[in-house]
Amino acid sequence: MFRHTKHLQFEAKPEKPDALYAAKLQELIGGAYGEMTVTMQYLFQGWNCRVEGKYKDMILDVATEEIGHVEMLATMVARLLEGAPDDVMAKAVKDPAVGAVVGGMNPQQAIVSGGGAVLADSGATPWNGKYIVASGNLMADFYANVAAEAQGRLQTARLYNMTDDPGVKAMLKFNLARDTVHQNQWLAAIEQLKEDGLEGPIVPNALFDEENQEHSRTHWHLSDGTQAQDGPWAQGIAPDGVHQLEFLADPAPLGGPASAPPPPDHLYGTKAAGHGGEGSAKGPSGAPNKSMGDKIKDTFS
Amino acid sequence: MFRHTKHLQFEAKPEKPDALYAAKLQELIGGAYGEMTVTMQYLFQGWNCRVEGKYKDMILDVATEEIGHVEMLATMVARLLEGAPDDVMAKAVKDPAVGAVVGGMNPQQAIVSGGGAVLADSGATPWNGKYIVASGNLMADFYANVAAEAQGRLQTARLYNMTDDPGVKAMLKFNLARDTVHQNQWLAAIEQLKEDGLEGPIVPNALFDEENQEHSRTHWHLSDGTQAQDGPWAQGIAPDGVHQLEFLADPAPLGGPASAPPPPDHLYGTKAAGHGGEGSAKGPSGAPNKSMGDKIKDTFS
Amino acid sequence: MFRHTKHLQFEAKPEKPDALYAAKLQELIGGAYGEMTVTMQYLFQGWNCRVEGKYKDMILDVATEEIGHVEMLATMVARLLEGAPDDVMAKAVKDPAVGAVVGGMNPQQAIVSGGGAVLADSGATPWNGKYIVASGNLMADFYANVAAEAQGRLQTARLYNMTDDPGVKAMLKFNLARDTVHQNQWLAAIEQLKEDGLEGPIVPNALFDEENQEHSRTHWHLSDGTQAQDGPWAQGIAPDGVHQLEFLADPAPLGGPASAPPPPDHLYGTKAAGHGGEGSAKGPSGAPNKSMGDKIKDTFS
Amino acid sequence: MFRHTKHLQFEAKPEKPDALYAAKLQELIGGAYGEMTVTMQYLFQGWNCRVEGKYKDMILDVATEEIGHVEMLATMVARLLEGAPDDVMAKAVKDPAVGAVVGGMNPQQAIVSGGGAVLADSGATPWNGKYIVASGNLMADFYANVAAEAQGRLQTARLYNMTDDPGVKAMLKFNLARDTVHQNQWLAAIEQLKEDGLEGPIVPNALFDEENQEHSRTHWHLSDGTQAQDGPWAQGIAPDGVHQLEFLADPAPLGGPASAPPPPDHLYGTKAAGHGGEGSAKGPSGAPNKSMGDKIKDTFS
Amino acid sequence: MFRHTKHLQFEAKPEKPDALYAAKLQELIGGAYGEMTVTMQYLFQGWNCRVEGKYKDMILDVATEEIGHVEMLATMVARLLEGAPDDVMAKAVKDPAVGAVVGGMNPQQAIVSGGGAVLADSGATPWNGKYIVASGNLMADFYANVAAEAQGRLQTARLYNMTDDPGVKAMLKFNLARDTVHQNQWLAAIEQLKEDGLEGPIVPNALFDEENQEHSRTHWHLSDGTQAQDGPWAQGIAPDGVHQLEFLADPAPLGGPASAPPPPDHLYGTKAAGHGGEGSAKGPSGAPNKSMGDKIKDTFS
Amino acid sequence: MFRHTKHLQFEAKPEKPDALYAAKLQELIGGAYGEMTVTMQYLFQGWNCRVEGKYKDMILDVATEEIGHVEMLATMVARLLEGAPDDVMAKAVKDPAVGAVVGGMNPQQAIVSGGGAVLADSGATPWNGKYIVASGNLMADFYANVAAEAQGRLQTARLYNMTDDPGVKAMLKFNLARDTVHQNQWLAAIEQLKEDGLEGPIVPNALFDEENQEHSRTHWHLSDGTQAQDGPWAQGIAPDGVHQLEFLADPAPLGGPASAPPPPDHLYGTKAAGHGGEGSAKGPSGAPNKSMGDKIKDTFS
Repeated sequence: MFRHTKHLQFEAKPEKPDALYAAKLQELIGGAYGEMTVTMQYLFQGWNCRVEGKYKDMILDVATEEIGHVEMLATMVARLLEGAPDDVMAKAVKDPAVGAVVGGMNPQQAIVSGGGAVLADSGATPWNGKYIVASGNLMADFYANVAAEAQGRLQTARLYNMTDDPGVKAMLKFNLARDTVHQNQWLAAIEQLKEDGLEGPIVPNALFDEENQEHSRTHWHLSDGTQAQDGPWAQGIAPDGVHQLEFLADPAPLGGPASAPPPPDHLYGTKAAGHGGEGSAKGPSGAPNKSMGDKIKDTFS
Repeated sequence: MFRHTKHLQFEAKPEKPDALYAAKLQELIGGAYGEMTVTMQYLFQGWNCRVEGKYKDMILDVATEEIGHVEMLATMVARLLEGAPDDVMAKAVKDPAVGAVVGGMNPQQAIVSGGGAVLADSGATPWNGKYIVASGNLMADFYANVAAEAQGRLQTARLYNMTDDPGVKAMLKFNLARDTVHQNQWLAAIEQLKEDGLEGPIVPNALFDEENQEHSRTHWHLSDGTQAQDGPWAQGIAPDGVHQLEFLADPAPLGGPASAPPPPDHLYGTKAAGHGGEGSAKGPSGAPNKSMGDKIKDTFS
Repeated sequence: MFRHTKHLQFEAKPEKPDALYAAKLQELIGGAYGEMTVTMQYLFQGWNCRVEGKYKDMILDVATEEIGHVEMLATMVARLLEGAPDDVMAKAVKDPAVGAVVGGMNPQQAIVSGGGAVLADSGATPWNGKYIVASGNLMADFYANVAAEAQGRLQTARLYNMTDDPGVKAMLKFNLARDTVHQNQWLAAIEQLKEDGLEGPIVPNALFDEENQEHSRTHWHLSDGTQAQDGPWAQGIAPDGVHQLEFLADPAPLGGPASAPPPPDHLYGTKAAGHGGEGSAKGPSGAPNKSMGDKIKDTFS
Repeated sequence: MFRHTKHLQFEAKPEKPDALYAAKLQELIGGAYGEMTVTMQYLFQGWNCRVEGKYKDMILDVATEEIGHVEMLATMVARLLEGAPDDVMAKAVKDPAVGAVVGGMNPQQAIVSGGGAVLADSGATPWNGKYIVASGNLMADFYANVAAEAQGRLQTARLYNMTDDPGVKAMLKFNLARDTVHQNQWLAAIEQLKEDGLEGPIVPNALFDEENQEHSRTHWHLSDGTQAQDGPWAQGIAPDGVHQLEFLADPAPLGGPASAPPPPDHLYGTKAAGHGGEGSAKGPSGAPNKSMGDKIKDTFS
Repeated sequence: MFRHTKHLQFEAKPEKPDALYAAKLQELIGGAYGEMTVTMQYLFQGWNCRVEGKYKDMILDVATEEIGHVEMLATMVARLLEGAPDDVMAKAVKDPAVGAVVGGMNPQQAIVSGGGAVLADSGATPWNGKYIVASGNLMADFYANVAAEAQGRLQTARLYNMTDDPGVKAMLKFNLARDTVHQNQWLAAIEQLKEDGLEGPIVPNALFDEENQEHSRTHWHLSDGTQAQDGPWAQGIAPDGVHQLEFLADPAPLGGPASAPPPPDHLYGTKAAGHGGEGSAKGPSGAPNKSMGDKIKDTFS
Repeated sequence: MFRHTKHLQFEAKPEKPDALYAAKLQELIGGAYGEMTVTMQYLFQGWNCRVEGKYKDMILDVATEEIGHVEMLATMVARLLEGAPDDVMAKAVKDPAVGAVVGGMNPQQAIVSGGGAVLADSGATPWNGKYIVASGNLMADFYANVAAEAQGRLQTARLYNMTDDPGVKAMLKFNLARDTVHQNQWLAAIEQLKEDGLEGPIVPNALFDEENQEHSRTHWHLSDGTQAQDGPWAQGIAPDGVHQLEFLADPAPLGGPASAPPPPDHLYGTKAAGHGGEGSAKGPSGAPNKSMGDKIKDTFS
């Protein structure tokens, strides 16, 4: 259960209205990496967390803070739009300087929200429930959280450079600071998961014995840049401390040709007469895979 | 520019058809963390990469491999659907065992694709361009890539446990292995970026001086679990090696009340008579913030 | 700013797991009229509200409560899925009774969320920012809120009848009760807006003089049911107390033919030689509209 | 079955082209509350209506009229774009006044539609089937219809103030008038449903005995504004004539802590050793709820 | 403007309810190639048509018919759901035969629509405005219409084979017939456009002189199947009667390496020290393209 | 499996940056008919193709080429954005000429992609998996491919006229040429399918005997333009060589009234007392259809 105060976590007062900037700021509200995303991602992770105690408590603290960030941004947008949408639009056709502003405005902030924020990004695409993930695996989710905070802080920094308004900059400085601490916190939590023996660096920390070992350490060189072999991703011990990485300079496909079995008549797929169904799940697998690599290289090059 | 061989990177032959499983496997094709996502994410990152050489070459090698994973999964789905959609559906009403299968089938694999894969997830939601990110900042993007591979391997592992088909399991073992190596590779690349002095652990590696320093190290305790203070995210030196983390047990809001200025008349927003516009961007900021923390705690609790 | 307690507003304990029902319950979380919608709709309305005082306070009280409803439902879903997704799926092919359950399950609750809720509806469509509205006009928004609570309570009632689990029913009874009080509250708030002289029954309470008076009171009879004239919507004084409603039994179009002007050459639209552009914005309007009604009736019937 | 005349319900002739305005007008075509929404909402409600006679006839009359409104707006957009997209764009880089127009244009009206309307809103978001509702419960649906007409008329009024073109204003006056009469009609239909004894004011008119009576009349005060208690939503008899509303000034959660049961091993969720599953659906419910309110207040504040 | 009769274009009476089939039939209502798509596509094409006369009249005749097809299908769905959603669901857990049905049901047809159709497809994905196109170029649009009718008839035929209900089959026979005539009509209209000299077979019938002639007739062989050269698409005169098609057996890229210029500092993209910007729009183009083909083949194979 | 070279299929070097144009060019990347669509459509068609040999080989050749077109366009966008997003935005408020550019820019190309392309269209709508179709029926799919290439070339031609940059025009000339050859190729493939006896002109080439013959050849005249009868779609032998087309000047509905059966009580749909369920699937069909045509005409006109 939640409680609310109308006092903002941090002040959100622009020096003066700026409808152009209000349109861009939507990215931090309803963008794929905006505050709405981290709010809902952390809430669902907290509710979905199966480890009572410090992890769950921390997730829910941060989640609760993030709702307040949406609030700060929505308030800022409303103030940046003060007086603007209507008057500006009326003057726009006559005065190019005003017209320029109109061009960059979000018309829905006027027509739909009456001078307020919408739940969409800077391209007017509505926020979407698929932006969040709460998998129940804390390592997978903390990786996602680091990524979300990193993209979020990057976008905030870019927007910080697109305004001179001291009030806006003051608020964004606070947001940058919170993104810094949250990035640090998720990075620390990743280390803690390993230290507590709950998860390893590779998600999930399971099935390594079953997986195809010869394929869990090779870099397949499939583009033409020759320098991919120069990084630590193609040689030496992997970050998991287990796998010995290797560079495959000229890899050949390991499987047979991709084909699909003939469909049942009543689906009206086009099929050749007498097609034997090499790709059939039921049928025999045909020629052995042995010399396939060589054969492929011939046909491929 | 690309070239293609019909030979699959790895064999994709189920022992027998299984329409139920074909529906679930869609998650690995068109899900938010499926192979389509990593394909397009890495391609756009490679094209958007401003550092010629080992990073760009590595990204494009992996990107090119991933297109082939979509191909393997699409082939597997077609073979799992062999003979199934049509015949099964005809028998479904009479035979509950068959009907059970129908219930879990993806009707669009029959009606729309005629026994093949669709570009959607296991909930039939179509794949979406917002699933990918290519920010131009390699650290931000490599964090996102670790997260994508982690969620992807987790989902593959879950699906691995939902089938007994040896052919399907053989292919998924290969996929698990590739997800393992790719997770390792992005983790290694993150370290390399730091070692090369291109980026630091916090994204972006800039604006630290400008950001609000007192707020870049505090954990705000806003939920009621008391154990959030027990983790490394609330004390000690942060992973960035700079910030000293701190636990704020009873934080108070720093901003004034969230209000919005009155809208222009022609937008027909509801407004009270004589509303002075406390939240106005233009107006004076009113009462000082000094004792606000105390005041809030009163009204809040 | 928000604070949170892990204690739920009301208990969410099912008597036993039920994965089938967990899939359906998603409608109340991420459906177009689920709890996520009312949460975000009321939050944005509260932040966008330009009338300080009782209206704003009430909106934000209810908004804050609704976040807790998402929390209750997400918790209930996780508990309904206990043990289920994995084991059930393994047995499904062999046992039709189990298979039946699988058919109705949401595979993403297992594959993506690991036994938890997703931010989507019962058809697996993700929640979308376009489901909410916060127009700044309180009457328009309160009408939308009544509608949202009505659809929400209706869906809750339908779901209440689809389970026998006493724990689920106990929680849904609470939800039904909250939906009842909220419907009542928005209805009361509508009356209060009128009483306070802030808005009239028709939104927006403006432009009546400018609008085309002869057309603001007529019911156009365009389908073939003859009983549309028997309701209060086609006769007597309208709810706004001003307009005298009237039934137009055989209405004729008032405008000229719909045509579009020829496009510029460089857009390569198909156009006839010598087309004069009857529909042109620039050109003369051609034949007068006078006898158009008669003409239309001829060509139309 | 439908029939059509090319004569518009009302004239749609702008005095001169205005590509900027054509972009904004899309909100009334493909916006969440545009004419496409009411068209499809009323059609599906009419087809889904189980009460033959005056209600069904009225719904289908209005639905049929609304298709013609989409037609009027699409025609208006094509005429507003006359000559514009192409020529304007060519001049835009050189002349800022023209460039301003380009900035606010919808590029898809040129590139995709060749100088015509698209089925999207003023933010270029495509229209979506989730915008409509047809629940089969007429009271719920008529509430939704009032809300749709209110938002629609509000947006039309805002757009009316953003143009000086007499031809556009003439058409919008007609649209405003039709929105007025339709709002009145749905309000009248709501009263008629009650008078006919088909539905009560609260949707659905059922389950009141089963719902949790003590919770169907209380306003939970969860934000910090103190004036929420001053409205009719927190005191007196509710609009349903049954419930006595009450203001809960300091409400405490009624449920236990939100927790989720441990997931099955094969889903690879992170879990602590020996976690007993307090939130389990199977397990005992643990400590009684009695003194929970007090306990919460302690931990919460 | 439109008029409506409640009489259906063709009877829509199933012999008995079938909730499973009602879920599948949604594909023909709200699928990407369902009746909603052709309705809106033809309406927008008709309104956007710049050639008054036979083409426009024909388009609008067919468009108007299609609205009635949505009506027939929505009616059929409601009747197929008679009695079903509620009772069936209650019995489902106990009886596997019933449970099988539940698994394949669309829960939103019960929870959201109360036993009626939704505006979504058989995977519960809502219909979307991007499914339609009305480009203003009649040849482009008629090609799209043939494609839509072909996919639509194919899906109808597949659904025809998934039921034994004589009432459903009778209606689908009518639908198949209408899809046949409409496919024929759009094919005929394509020929007529050519005969009338309005458009040629290649869209748009322009810019052939400007386009890169050596590249407008070659098939690039980039996959490994060797039989692509055996079709009329790789040899002989093209359908446009102008181009001589040719098979390029071993094509090499014509462009330089894909690179992106360094971003401005304030966007915080990762960049190497001293990167000269080979890909820069401003900079010199570097090495000539002459021997690039050879070079590529070396690095590529 | 795929391989990649960084060398572009054709050069993508603008003479100078142009952020405005970069925004529009997104339509060719992520639009419904952009290069992403044809890439994924042809890949899935190739993988789903059940006819080994020339058809499958050709589809996969073209599919592989198209990935390289996305690459060319993404590279072009990055170069068009060189230096632009950041500096331009900083100057925009002061200088109207610059502001005009800002208005037409895609803010996400700066904020999200850091000066690169996004996977969205010119209206910032993300690309969507529903844009593609791979039905397994080659005739249906080839029709869709012709339509896609036609719309794609049309949009390319429109964009070709919106720039003067010689580098951009050079690349678009190449794209126009490739669209020409691909349109020709799919048209040739359609003829080849018929020649090979695999499919007829009407999709699917089946069920003609079952369909309602009297309805598979009539044009229903439902709009008021009288010239629809003048085309080959309303008279003579149809393109399939079988049907004799006919113009129905005054068609009457063939079905009874659209009604829906009463819903089960527990869904709380509104229903009249004693409603007998004329539309019921179970019930008697009521009055015969015989004289319905006449009756309808009465009520309809």
